[in-house]
Amino acid sequence: MALYVMKFGGTSVGTVERIRKVAEKVDGMLNEGHQVVVVVSAMSGETNRLVDMAREIMPAVVDTRELDVLLSTGEQVTIALLSMALKSLGREARSWTGGQIRVLTDSAHSKARIVSIDTERLRADIDAGCTPVVAGFQGVDDAGNITTLGRGGSDTSAVAFAAALGADECQIYTDVDGVYTTDPRVEARAQRLDQITFEEMLEMASLGSKVLQIRAVEFAGNYNVPLRVLSSFEPGPGTLITYDNEEDDMEQAVVSGIAFARDEAQVTITGVPDRPGIAYSILGPISDLNIVVDMIIQNVGADGSTDFTFTVNRDDYQRVITHLQSTSDELGGAAVSGDDRVAKLSVVGVGMRSHAGIASRMFRALSEAGINLRLISTSEIKVSVVIEEKYLELGVRSLHEEFGLHESKGVA
Amino acid sequence: MALYVMKFGGTSVGTVERIRKVAEKVDGMLNEGHQVVVVVSAMSGETNRLVDMAREIMPAVVDTRELDVLLSTGEQVTIALLSMALKSLGREARSWTGGQIRVLTDSAHSKARIVSIDTERLRADIDAGCTPVVAGFQGVDDAGNITTLGRGGSDTSAVAFAAALGADECQIYTDVDGVYTTDPRVEARAQRLDQITFEEMLEMASLGSKVLQIRAVEFAGNYNVPLRVLSSFEPGPGTLITYDNEEDDMEQAVVSGIAFARDEAQVTITGVPDRPGIAYSILGPISDLNIVVDMIIQNVGADGSTDFTFTVNRDDYQRVITHLQSTSDELGGAAVSGDDRVAKLSVVGVGMRSHAGIASRMFRALSEAGINLRLISTSEIKVSVVIEEKYLELGVRSLHEEFGLHESKGVA
Repeated sequence: MALYVMKFGGTSVGTVERIRKVAEKVDGMLNEGHQVVVVVSAMSGETNRLVDMAREIMPAVVDTRELDVLLSTGEQVTIALLSMALKSLGREARSWTGGQIRVLTDSAHSKARIVSIDTERLRADIDAGCTPVVAGFQGVDDAGNITTLGRGGSDTSAVAFAAALGADECQIYTDVDGVYTTDPRVEARAQRLDQITFEEMLEMASLGSKVLQIRAVEFAGNYNVPLRVLSSFEPGPGTLITYDNEEDDMEQAVVSGIAFARDEAQVTITGVPDRPGIAYSILGPISDLNIVVDMIIQNVGADGSTDFTFTVNRDDYQRVITHLQSTSDELGGAAVSGDDRVAKLSVVGVGMRSHAGIASRMFRALSEAGINLRLISTSEIKVSVVIEEKYLELGVRSLHEEFGLHESKGVA
Repeated sequence: MALYVMKFGGTSVGTVERIRKVAEKVDGMLNEGHQVVVVVSAMSGETNRLVDMAREIMPAVVDTRELDVLLSTGEQVTIALLSMALKSLGREARSWTGGQIRVLTDSAHSKARIVSIDTERLRADIDAGCTPVVAGFQGVDDAGNITTLGRGGSDTSAVAFAAALGADECQIYTDVDGVYTTDPRVEARAQRLDQITFEEMLEMASLGSKVLQIRAVEFAGNYNVPLRVLSSFEPGPGTLITYDNEEDDMEQAVVSGIAFARDEAQVTITGVPDRPGIAYSILGPISDLNIVVDMIIQNVGADGSTDFTFTVNRDDYQRVITHLQSTSDELGGAAVSGDDRVAKLSVVGVGMRSHAGIASRMFRALSEAGINLRLISTSEIKVSVVIEEKYLELGVRSLHEEFGLHESKGVA
């Protein structure tokens, strides 16, 4: 007998019919003799509906305390309906809001962090053979104000409950059946991975495989909660995300997947005086504008000057360029150039650590496909390049082939 | 400076635009230097939407604990939106769910009774110049389970808050601008009453003037909370519902209004043996079917038998008749007859107590209008008759004229 936290997202509980299907899935797990705590999101569309009303009332700055009161009703609707659905299957079930089981958070409304969870009531339910159905995404602060963890925070809630309860596994049910070697829409031969490490998952997630919230993966990694991504709609084992604790297996699969990000823009400022503090004087103001900078690359120039390149989301491109013109003037006329039609392509794999040559294999494969590399950046478990966007699909397929991912089923 | 509880029902907060109007009304009250606690219902249509989803999941018996979790989200949405609307007007405001301010109720889910209210937080808000916006209709039981007071319970919540806070007045904002001498759709010359007693209001409400929940009026009467019904949409003083403590004024207006109920059905069982327990043997089974019986009249017959008549809602008529056939067999072949096209017409007024002759004036006026009386029933402050439904409008107008209500403005 194992204890599972089963988390179902908005699409999985998007209609009454789907809520019934979720109840059947939970029922099936109970039939196998396991214990279950269910965590749910708001029905899909509901959060947007509520946010729209809030914006209509407060078009400028929405009050986040009240927004949290408003949005937390979304999950509350789902927990009630799912508990009813379980009861109609003859199961004992009970719904719990974040406030009722004291999911204590800080007071940062709309982006709160979980401080602690009181598991007493959940334990009592489980021990009594009653399945608790818990609202994800929400909590209360010290003063009893309702807080939310921000969009997608339900994944984080689920991991937090699994950690607090010492669950055997935290299962995240989504509309995909696992993590793939790359996006199947780009490479039809992409394979589902049976297993992936937390670190790889973080790289895959942040690079565009939007299966799981990064924050939830980090949280699971920190608390060593085995995390499994699987489909709400189809049977299958999904992908297990675990600690990198089986070095032998890991070394076999050098590369786990090919991640990519479209809609990138690249900005270069050349002829910058090469002196301490130069990176901050360029990037500080960008960061103050709340623009997220992704890759940052600095090259030593020939004549005591340096070239400085970074990437941002395409939507921020014009603002960045405009802003850099003035920075450039301050820096004595450094030239600003850029391209807003680029994409990032990455090879990810824990095995890379002990295998030299992954980068050069990657570069050769792309070169043979006739793809020019604009930027290169490497980390412990990934190599990323920036290329012209129009070559993205070709690049993904070339690398998927090069690293034999068609046959791969992860480290199974 | 006075403290007002202002309660807005579902229609008054039915859209974002209307919520903004409500905020302006509250703002106006604050501008006059008063203190305000706002109590709100769910946006109109929301409760039905939620109930429909619950029924879809549990068609047979809906779990009331979970139904309460579900329905209580309705008010929670409204308090958040209204607080935002007040803030955009530059007012300090804060929303509170029933659970957050511990509106303690018993555990009778979906029809809970309020046990106590912790006013500490509301007081702190008011004293700090912040307007509390409270969810009506909901509370929590001892164990922290969410409860609801049943449909329309928001009026009761408002009165309870007013009583607990010692408010100067509890104002119920609705889609009508007060209590009328009769339904203006039937008699265009119907007059708004400036004032009415709790007892009269109870009779008017139970007889079809669906302005206020009966339970709220009883509650207000018990706790001596001055209650005012007024329009959310139009200015005006509305109708004040108070204790009958000004006998002099009361005696002037003998009759306050003409109430009526359509959709009634009358059932008669004749030739029943006149012995103890007979009423129970007839009505007990009806009550067990959860059918509400309104008027009950028993007449002594000539030959040791008796005739027994009562009225029910028209929707229940067929069930009652079917059921009575079998009762009749048990009672030795008493005859069952009935009519499902009748209506009840009542004259209501506290002044009646000290004025004989109201009943006979009523009967004469109806007789002159050619209306036959089927049943007659009287109480301290009302006289009711059952007539053929087609004569209802004629009857209302005749009585409105007879008692001079065209000129009346209540006891003002």
